[in-house]
Amino acid sequence: MGEFELIRRYFFPIAEAGNTSAILLGPGDDCAIQRVEPGLDLVFSVDALVEGVHFPPDYDPEKLGWRGLAVAASDLAAMGADPVCFTLALTLPDANPDWLQAFARGLAAAAAHFGLALAGGDTTRGPLTLSLQVHGTVPRGQAIRRTGAKAGDYVCVSGTLGEAGAALNYLDSDNPGPDEQALLARYHYPQPRLDLGASLRGHASAAVDISDGLVADLGHILEASGVGACIDVARLPVLAALKRLVGSEGAVNQALNAGDDYELCITISPEAWEDLPEDTRGQLTIIGEVRSGEGLALTRDGQSEGPVAGGYDHFRT
Amino acid sequence: MGEFELIRRYFFPIAEAGNTSAILLGPGDDCAIQRVEPGLDLVFSVDALVEGVHFPPDYDPEKLGWRGLAVAASDLAAMGADPVCFTLALTLPDANPDWLQAFARGLAAAAAHFGLALAGGDTTRGPLTLSLQVHGTVPRGQAIRRTGAKAGDYVCVSGTLGEAGAALNYLDSDNPGPDEQALLARYHYPQPRLDLGASLRGHASAAVDISDGLVADLGHILEASGVGACIDVARLPVLAALKRLVGSEGAVNQALNAGDDYELCITISPEAWEDLPEDTRGQLTIIGEVRSGEGLALTRDGQSEGPVAGGYDHFRT
Repeated sequence: MGEFELIRRYFFPIAEAGNTSAILLGPGDDCAIQRVEPGLDLVFSVDALVEGVHFPPDYDPEKLGWRGLAVAASDLAAMGADPVCFTLALTLPDANPDWLQAFARGLAAAAAHFGLALAGGDTTRGPLTLSLQVHGTVPRGQAIRRTGAKAGDYVCVSGTLGEAGAALNYLDSDNPGPDEQALLARYHYPQPRLDLGASLRGHASAAVDISDGLVADLGHILEASGVGACIDVARLPVLAALKRLVGSEGAVNQALNAGDDYELCITISPEAWEDLPEDTRGQLTIIGEVRSGEGLALTRDGQSEGPVAGGYDHFRT
Repeated sequence: MGEFELIRRYFFPIAEAGNTSAILLGPGDDCAIQRVEPGLDLVFSVDALVEGVHFPPDYDPEKLGWRGLAVAASDLAAMGADPVCFTLALTLPDANPDWLQAFARGLAAAAAHFGLALAGGDTTRGPLTLSLQVHGTVPRGQAIRRTGAKAGDYVCVSGTLGEAGAALNYLDSDNPGPDEQALLARYHYPQPRLDLGASLRGHASAAVDISDGLVADLGHILEASGVGACIDVARLPVLAALKRLVGSEGAVNQALNAGDDYELCITISPEAWEDLPEDTRGQLTIIGEVRSGEGLALTRDGQSEGPVAGGYDHFRT
């Protein structure tokens, strides 16, 4: 089977996912065409995933399909954007139909779940690498940026933290227990907070998704906004399963520094917090407060620590 | 130097290239934001370039920067789109500042030349791979697709063909002569036909850029449009330097089958051809005619051959 037939068979069906009315022309021409209706802005982000760096060698292709699109879609959630479509540049060593079919199955499931139609792509031979670009829209001027945090805002996170990072220790487990399985699900099937992100438009003062760890990603907000913050580690939302596996202190460290959770970290004024619908507040935990100055301080057992630094830098030596 | 500082230093200045008024937010947040004005459609395409597949190992990083963006921009030319911005997912084995600086220099030169601002990206560790997505705009409904070719249309190409493919034989030449140098320039510094493509909106019935070879890429138009075509090989525009190096027959074969030229192949009705401004016609050569039926036939020395097939398929076995 040639390249073109292979792409058609496995990937073109994913062009039917999502809000296809905005895609005037999908895969198969030199370019795709998207109509961005007046009153909307286009929001987009690209993420590369490399075998052996962002996922283990010989990683399950179905999980990879889901995970790749989830990681990319999480950036749309962080802007408060409504998902529209994505492109996939896929480099792979050979055109193994079984691998491709499983990968496409995971990708299609994620595309349908997140509402992202495949709009175009490029498939070439080479080391296994995915590059996914996601497109979303926001009402004009309403994207949530990193620059709007102000002293006095709450710092909030969605969901629970640290599980995906801790799951790295169990990826090769032959017989993981229920606690390990709970963590592994977080690693394999990230759930980008698209609905939550969209519901925070006009409320949150700044937002980021937690891909490199809370300390690092909140640090991006603080730096971009020119402010500092203090977090109370006792407030960090962690799963009981994580505490059982790594202890309370280990869970806190994972929640602060581990990446791959793809939860949202936002800042929001106390007034805007009160205005949030109750079900939106219910998806968030207040973990601290924005302060004037710079840097991130921690409160642990009533003691103040910091400023702290952390996160993953691909080229730090 | 960390990843973020490295990206800021070398790549953020490229965000100033091009039509920046359409980019409300460039690199540095979770997503970039582009405003697509009412009356325009967004047109976009992604291309992956892999070391050892799309460019030689240890390829000059400055040439790679130019070439990568040129290859991607050529897809905008094929749609008749006006260039706006691009994203770059760059995977590289290490953060060598000299390499990065040279690469960014070539990329910046191409960005300024083509009018494409860097809007966002992702830089990670891994085998050297580039994934570039370009964004352009067209007046609503005016993108030139592959599907519009009709029996009786002329088949035209821009520029001259076959040189970039022939240049592959001279990439390692220590002391290339003037003819070899002319070919090498075509390989190293492709010139996507952006102005020509835009001037063909409303005139050409179909268009494609020649990345995989004329026979293969014209074949895409014919298949998408449900028509056939006949090309007179005597009309193929080839450079005298190419004929001197590989002979007349060799030059024809290169012009038919070699990729990497990034010229345009279009179809256009005789009436629309007559309506074209003279300077636009001057950039095109009529090489044949669209016919009903299917497949591509060649006329060589008055004899008809075909249908023929060709082109580069990354996964053909």
